[in-house]
Amino acid sequence: MSRTAVIGAGPCGLAQLHAFEQARLDGIDVGEVVCFEKQSDWGGLWNYTWRTGLDAHGDPVHGSMYRYLWSNGPKECLEFADYSFDEHFGGPIPSFPPREVLYDYIVGRAKKSNVRQFIRFDTAVRDVTYDGRSFAVTVESWETGPGVLRTEIFDHVIVATGHFSTPYVPEYPGFESFPGRILHSHDFRDAVEFAGKNLLILGSSYSAEDIALQSLKYGAESITIAYRTAPMGFGWPDGITEVPALQHLDGRTAHFADGSTREVDAIILCTGYQHHFPFIDPELRLQTTNNLYPPGLYKGVVWTANPKLLYLGMQDQYYTFNMFDAQAFVARDVVLGRLPLPEADAMAADVAGWLAKYAAVDSVMEQIDFQTDYVRELISLTDYAEFDIELVRAHFVTWEHDKDESITGYRDKSFTSPCTGTVGPVPSSTWWDELDDSLARFLKR
Amino acid sequence: MSRTAVIGAGPCGLAQLHAFEQARLDGIDVGEVVCFEKQSDWGGLWNYTWRTGLDAHGDPVHGSMYRYLWSNGPKECLEFADYSFDEHFGGPIPSFPPREVLYDYIVGRAKKSNVRQFIRFDTAVRDVTYDGRSFAVTVESWETGPGVLRTEIFDHVIVATGHFSTPYVPEYPGFESFPGRILHSHDFRDAVEFAGKNLLILGSSYSAEDIALQSLKYGAESITIAYRTAPMGFGWPDGITEVPALQHLDGRTAHFADGSTREVDAIILCTGYQHHFPFIDPELRLQTTNNLYPPGLYKGVVWTANPKLLYLGMQDQYYTFNMFDAQAFVARDVVLGRLPLPEADAMAADVAGWLAKYAAVDSVMEQIDFQTDYVRELISLTDYAEFDIELVRAHFVTWEHDKDESITGYRDKSFTSPCTGTVGPVPSSTWWDELDDSLARFLKR
Repeated sequence: MSRTAVIGAGPCGLAQLHAFEQARLDGIDVGEVVCFEKQSDWGGLWNYTWRTGLDAHGDPVHGSMYRYLWSNGPKECLEFADYSFDEHFGGPIPSFPPREVLYDYIVGRAKKSNVRQFIRFDTAVRDVTYDGRSFAVTVESWETGPGVLRTEIFDHVIVATGHFSTPYVPEYPGFESFPGRILHSHDFRDAVEFAGKNLLILGSSYSAEDIALQSLKYGAESITIAYRTAPMGFGWPDGITEVPALQHLDGRTAHFADGSTREVDAIILCTGYQHHFPFIDPELRLQTTNNLYPPGLYKGVVWTANPKLLYLGMQDQYYTFNMFDAQAFVARDVVLGRLPLPEADAMAADVAGWLAKYAAVDSVMEQIDFQTDYVRELISLTDYAEFDIELVRAHFVTWEHDKDESITGYRDKSFTSPCTGTVGPVPSSTWWDELDDSLARFLKR
Repeated sequence: MSRTAVIGAGPCGLAQLHAFEQARLDGIDVGEVVCFEKQSDWGGLWNYTWRTGLDAHGDPVHGSMYRYLWSNGPKECLEFADYSFDEHFGGPIPSFPPREVLYDYIVGRAKKSNVRQFIRFDTAVRDVTYDGRSFAVTVESWETGPGVLRTEIFDHVIVATGHFSTPYVPEYPGFESFPGRILHSHDFRDAVEFAGKNLLILGSSYSAEDIALQSLKYGAESITIAYRTAPMGFGWPDGITEVPALQHLDGRTAHFADGSTREVDAIILCTGYQHHFPFIDPELRLQTTNNLYPPGLYKGVVWTANPKLLYLGMQDQYYTFNMFDAQAFVARDVVLGRLPLPEADAMAADVAGWLAKYAAVDSVMEQIDFQTDYVRELISLTDYAEFDIELVRAHFVTWEHDKDESITGYRDKSFTSPCTGTVGPVPSSTWWDELDDSLARFLKR
């Protein structure tokens, strides 16, 4: 019997288990599927933990999730095509839910498809090697005890461990003697910790944008965001300012490229993440920066150097849960032989075509179009449910405009579901004024 | 030629390199000695870093050192017998130096014995296995690039990676929703971060004691220390209180076993460390709690199950640098065959004798006597320089009494060197009032 290992039970891993289960319900022999998850529960990044740094077993903490995180894109852009928000919540809900709501939704489908039985929790993968025929996957389980390694053989390995867990942490002159906290956004948990503080944030992507807003919302005195190449340029509320690159610190004083200075109490590095797979034989590791088309992956999923190894969700992301689904269905059909792979040179040519197309991408709008085209192709390859992807593309464009119009107000907008046509109701409180991010409160808004 | 790997270039690893170099200067063939250090510089824990959690390469940060740390024992109790404080500083200095001074001292001897040439910095050991004849040590170097593993063969491996790097991090009910920072002392860097805050500290050992005092000294509003079995019971200054075990948190409110409650802003877990060797084949890993005589180590150093594998500094510690020296000289002479090992059953009997003796230890004073006897035996086994160990024993007793007398004042006391007879001068400022922990300031006190 064919054996498939899935590493990680976050959105990608759960999508993969769901995909296999859908095939099994159709009477297809999917062989044995085993999912290894080092956390004690499912959900990956969406499984919030108060822990930072190292976990109870001395392993790096997977989570980068923080309190009061709300979706930064419309939920309609990430809706599962085969499990709508309407189905899960029994009726329409606003378009920008907080973490707990999205967690509930992801887990809801996993419960419905009954995939928990395939997951070995508290089990960290320590090594993956390939001997020319099959994979040896070595794991350490907290149930059998630390230091007890066990190796199992698999025909296929699907890596679904995410790429927002291992921080990229640069150093600037003066960090060594800065008299305050310096942390990476990976270790950011609760904006309340910074109430009354003057914060310096380094970065100009989603983390910087969102952590700046969160911190101001929960009481930070001021936030200075230093960018390296260009400011985000949103219409920031009073209290948030963007300045050119940090040069160095002198005690509490931050010096920037334009000669200006600020006194700051804490520094948050929103400097991004590394694709990091220390648990895989170096020869099998995906090596890429965070971008929309990592090299060496046919259809963005199949490791061309060895097509029995597959990677999910390794792209930078506009599309998320629905893209993971589309990838998982492709991965499943490759594993089951239902989606025949072309010869190596044809796969390489296909990848080269996408990379050439990506190289020509020149703007945010073109990035949205690029990933839309990619997801559209994925969906054409399998029996994953159809949804109105052109509407999702349009939503992303509207969403970008909404952000430019009001960075504190865009989360109050409504979008239409590409799956059900349901319109997200306008919430009764604005995101900026709503401090309670619980599911219970959200469903009453 | 015989090859020996030393893992780690902190106090233990540097002691080991120094020991080999002393033999080489005596005309002895020590073979090739290679020390692997994952940090970019030497000093181990004493090499302060602002980083917490994961380092620049996604590896766990080794350091647990924090700013404003002063020695919590008299420097005379840790003095190298063959490199006195007088020799290093050119004259007497007070008995309780801050971190930078001790770092300078450790590194000073390493420079004198010219051992830097043996250290491969930026090189993490990833795997150590034994095939019945020799060890295969697999390393990843940031110089050759991440993901490039290289394996070298060694006759002996000496593990000197310390055991205060991997935190033991328990969870209490309510941590999940506590609206403030929760950190382990491993991630504590700067007491100034907690100025004005009401802190809850969990623990009743050195970290709890020292971090409570530091935090108050640098402006914390209040510190509540919760103990599980017994309070430390020192005469705490106003602002520090000890209470029975934490039961749970309800929002910011901490509930203790005596029914009392406190509103707290941040929680510091001073809950200790794990001996953690994920880079060694599980069959070769020392497994022990933090105690004065880890099982399975002949003379506290030689891994009895395979005497070509040695561990330094794995004991809980009253004695530190001089004990590491005495161990390193024993390890060296075992490796060089100058200290013949008895048969396995005789080694086991020797270990059993120490464990039986340790089992009878019943008080702090008996612990001091126990470790004194252990170090005395080590010193009798090699040509490591003699020092007045009976004086050191007496110093520890005096020091414990000094702490009971004044927990804020004991660092102002003077002790006599067991190596040179020099008396540490009384500093011109008290530790409690001295906020500058630099070497430059210390040498002027």
